[in-house]
Amino acid sequence: MPKYGRVKDSHIKVLEDIVGSEKVSTRPEELYCYSRDSTIFKYRPDVVVRPENAAQVSEILKVANEDRIPVTPRGSGTSAAGLPLPVYGGILLDMSSMNKIELIDVENQIAIVQPGVVCDVLNERLREYGFFFPPDPASSPICTIGGMVNTNASGNRTMKYGPTRNYVLWLEVVLANGKIIHTGSKTLKSVSDYDLTRLFVGSEGSLGVVTKVGLKVVPLPESVGTAIFIFDSVDKLVRAATKVRLSGIVPEMLEFMDRRTTSASFDYAGIKDVPEGNFLLLDLGERREAVEPLLEKVVSICNSENPEFVDKTLDLEYRENLIKARKAALPALSRLRPSTAMEDCTVPLTKLPEAAVKVEKIPEDLGVEGFGLGNFGHIGDGNMHPTFVFDEREEEQRKALFKAIDILYQDIVLPLGGSVTAEHGIGLTRAKYVALEHPSTVGLMRSLKRFFDPNLILNPGKGKGGPLSIEEVSS
Amino acid sequence: MPKYGRVKDSHIKVLEDIVGSEKVSTRPEELYCYSRDSTIFKYRPDVVVRPENAAQVSEILKVANEDRIPVTPRGSGTSAAGLPLPVYGGILLDMSSMNKIELIDVENQIAIVQPGVVCDVLNERLREYGFFFPPDPASSPICTIGGMVNTNASGNRTMKYGPTRNYVLWLEVVLANGKIIHTGSKTLKSVSDYDLTRLFVGSEGSLGVVTKVGLKVVPLPESVGTAIFIFDSVDKLVRAATKVRLSGIVPEMLEFMDRRTTSASFDYAGIKDVPEGNFLLLDLGERREAVEPLLEKVVSICNSENPEFVDKTLDLEYRENLIKARKAALPALSRLRPSTAMEDCTVPLTKLPEAAVKVEKIPEDLGVEGFGLGNFGHIGDGNMHPTFVFDEREEEQRKALFKAIDILYQDIVLPLGGSVTAEHGIGLTRAKYVALEHPSTVGLMRSLKRFFDPNLILNPGKGKGGPLSIEEVSS
Repeated sequence: MPKYGRVKDSHIKVLEDIVGSEKVSTRPEELYCYSRDSTIFKYRPDVVVRPENAAQVSEILKVANEDRIPVTPRGSGTSAAGLPLPVYGGILLDMSSMNKIELIDVENQIAIVQPGVVCDVLNERLREYGFFFPPDPASSPICTIGGMVNTNASGNRTMKYGPTRNYVLWLEVVLANGKIIHTGSKTLKSVSDYDLTRLFVGSEGSLGVVTKVGLKVVPLPESVGTAIFIFDSVDKLVRAATKVRLSGIVPEMLEFMDRRTTSASFDYAGIKDVPEGNFLLLDLGERREAVEPLLEKVVSICNSENPEFVDKTLDLEYRENLIKARKAALPALSRLRPSTAMEDCTVPLTKLPEAAVKVEKIPEDLGVEGFGLGNFGHIGDGNMHPTFVFDEREEEQRKALFKAIDILYQDIVLPLGGSVTAEHGIGLTRAKYVALEHPSTVGLMRSLKRFFDPNLILNPGKGKGGPLSIEEVSS
Repeated sequence: MPKYGRVKDSHIKVLEDIVGSEKVSTRPEELYCYSRDSTIFKYRPDVVVRPENAAQVSEILKVANEDRIPVTPRGSGTSAAGLPLPVYGGILLDMSSMNKIELIDVENQIAIVQPGVVCDVLNERLREYGFFFPPDPASSPICTIGGMVNTNASGNRTMKYGPTRNYVLWLEVVLANGKIIHTGSKTLKSVSDYDLTRLFVGSEGSLGVVTKVGLKVVPLPESVGTAIFIFDSVDKLVRAATKVRLSGIVPEMLEFMDRRTTSASFDYAGIKDVPEGNFLLLDLGERREAVEPLLEKVVSICNSENPEFVDKTLDLEYRENLIKARKAALPALSRLRPSTAMEDCTVPLTKLPEAAVKVEKIPEDLGVEGFGLGNFGHIGDGNMHPTFVFDEREEEQRKALFKAIDILYQDIVLPLGGSVTAEHGIGLTRAKYVALEHPSTVGLMRSLKRFFDPNLILNPGKGKGGPLSIEEVSS
């Protein structure tokens, strides 16, 4: 198989013909901006193209497929897994111009949106009708629906509402050969096709380019109430959270931050009246009559694990601030050191205390000056985000990161029966662990990638069907 | 491509070696029993085999794949779409011996079951822990988890809880070539593989044979309460249901039966104190404090559409009886005439009144003596089950059925933007409508079927990747 084709001037001309010259850029400063996401990796595209509809995406893919030019779709670039980074250069498909909400129809419980629509923007519009799209990643103020679909994003409310895939009813997708297809149904329930919809959901742009999304929307909870707890150990915190879960209560959020992350996040969000320590945030969405008695109940349950601080509130502003602090975990930690690497894993809920304790010890065991850790995550799902803080410019610290990640996934997560990514995706960061977690299907996934994308042009070098690219296959 | 191989005596011997002779049968009376499901179709297998584990299934598939013998997996045979009928004969794989609940672990919110476990049996066991597996088809007392996975079954509680696919965390599947694979993760949240899990969910036994299932289980609602209404028109009933939905209330069940179905079902279930008419059942699962005020609220909402009868109850026995009456719709209608054909469709919720009125008129328009209709379904999802009652032995009535089905799907459901199956699957009944609903992906699905099953041995002649079989390809 030949290697990837280079982007030539003739290609630029063709791309300009397809989308208009103002939607194509090869300016170095712009290419540089597109070479980063939330990871420490950098890969520069050869050209950035901003399509406005599926027909344009189709034309672009036909050209790219013909000449074997890599195509990497990108939303807001918030990925913590290197997903939108063009490892082999080629065309960066910036989907953010496709940002129209085409339909909100709450009577039929559906919203039809272009992939560049920002999550919170959609939810602001839906709120007018008393409805919402529940998945709620920390990056919701900027992340796009297209990115959420391609990662099967989840975030804070997944424990109660499930991940993005539970809400995708219908997709418009452009295949590698330029063919535009529609999957699923705009009705609320259908089993009339193979579940192609969910095959594209979470496929990290490696099987097709999503150009339109039909989302199921649901009514907002009538009332919300929030309880917070500070524990002196992660162990107690997890035990309290487990007791809440087993009591039959299903909070909307059951979130935790370790001592270091809590301190950084409270500082970031300006929260002064809560003492620092291991922080548990419990948010309830219920019928009005149920909220207060339920808050009493969760406080009583959690008190059995002797928290150092307890508070509960029905005040929306205070609640917003607490949630904002939790969502600020990553930017807050990133103020501690020049670099951050946010990891992502799930373990069975009963293994959380053991996993958390082992994770806590990673920097200590590595013993590299300046290399530290904050841990936080969605405790109701068993999902932690150990986040290493360091300086990527220091060789020793950079090396420590890759050692730390190996320890995390290979020595802690997988032996405990966990998964190497809960919501951020495989991407670059975790590509080497796919075969370890999925020994029986890694070959099948690679074949499936080739079934959809025989020339391996779609987001090559990462994801679940790889690390697979023409360069690797050719070498 | 050669046609399917015949099952020879030498194959029977090999199958007996694999599973033991007592688990293999070619007795005509037994083969006859396996030639039916809930449809009017009949197709006899050549041999019935009852495997006990994945290793045996793997050996069987290797033999079948080598000699191109069709293999059709079957659970309890409750399919209303012909799914477990061996259209091209061959091996009937009766999975009902694989009926062990291998693990219930509510702390980790997972149950691991073999595919022959019956839905209600699992839920009885889970109830001891205060947990459940929400999907609730009317056939729940007999249908198997394997069948539910292969159809992506849903039923009464889908409006609130979603279909089976939302609960499948992990699968063990035997591929056509005998390879045993594991998909997904036993944790609650994972995006570390392509969503192979959901590709098998709803694939109707056409991509692989499911031999083990890891299910997410969730806490039972604290309290339940039920309201029922009788309306003099389906139109008013649907408007009332729509108002409930738009109010932000999400019932566990929002079920309807038309006048004829109500009459048959009440008779069947011995309900005498509710007048007959168009029946709306609304079941709430909520925190204890919220149930009564919420029942008041839904009654007040529905009263605005002038029901002829209203009742509400917290009494569990009365509630059970009402739900039993609703679940008895099909057996009750089947007492009216010798044959029933239960269809399955979804339309956008706002199109339900129009669809229901048009469906009602089908038998009238056909004007065939003895050919009638009962309609019922999951109104909260826009899912109706128009059920034709007739006598399949009468040529004219049998012809009327196929005309009626064409009218239903081609003239009513698809033009209204609906889907030809919400939960029962494509199977035999709806195979001809797949290309109409999914013109852009029908070719892709056929290729995908061949990708997984190159010799087309798995449940051939139906499903989403077909109607595709060697016989068709060869002819």
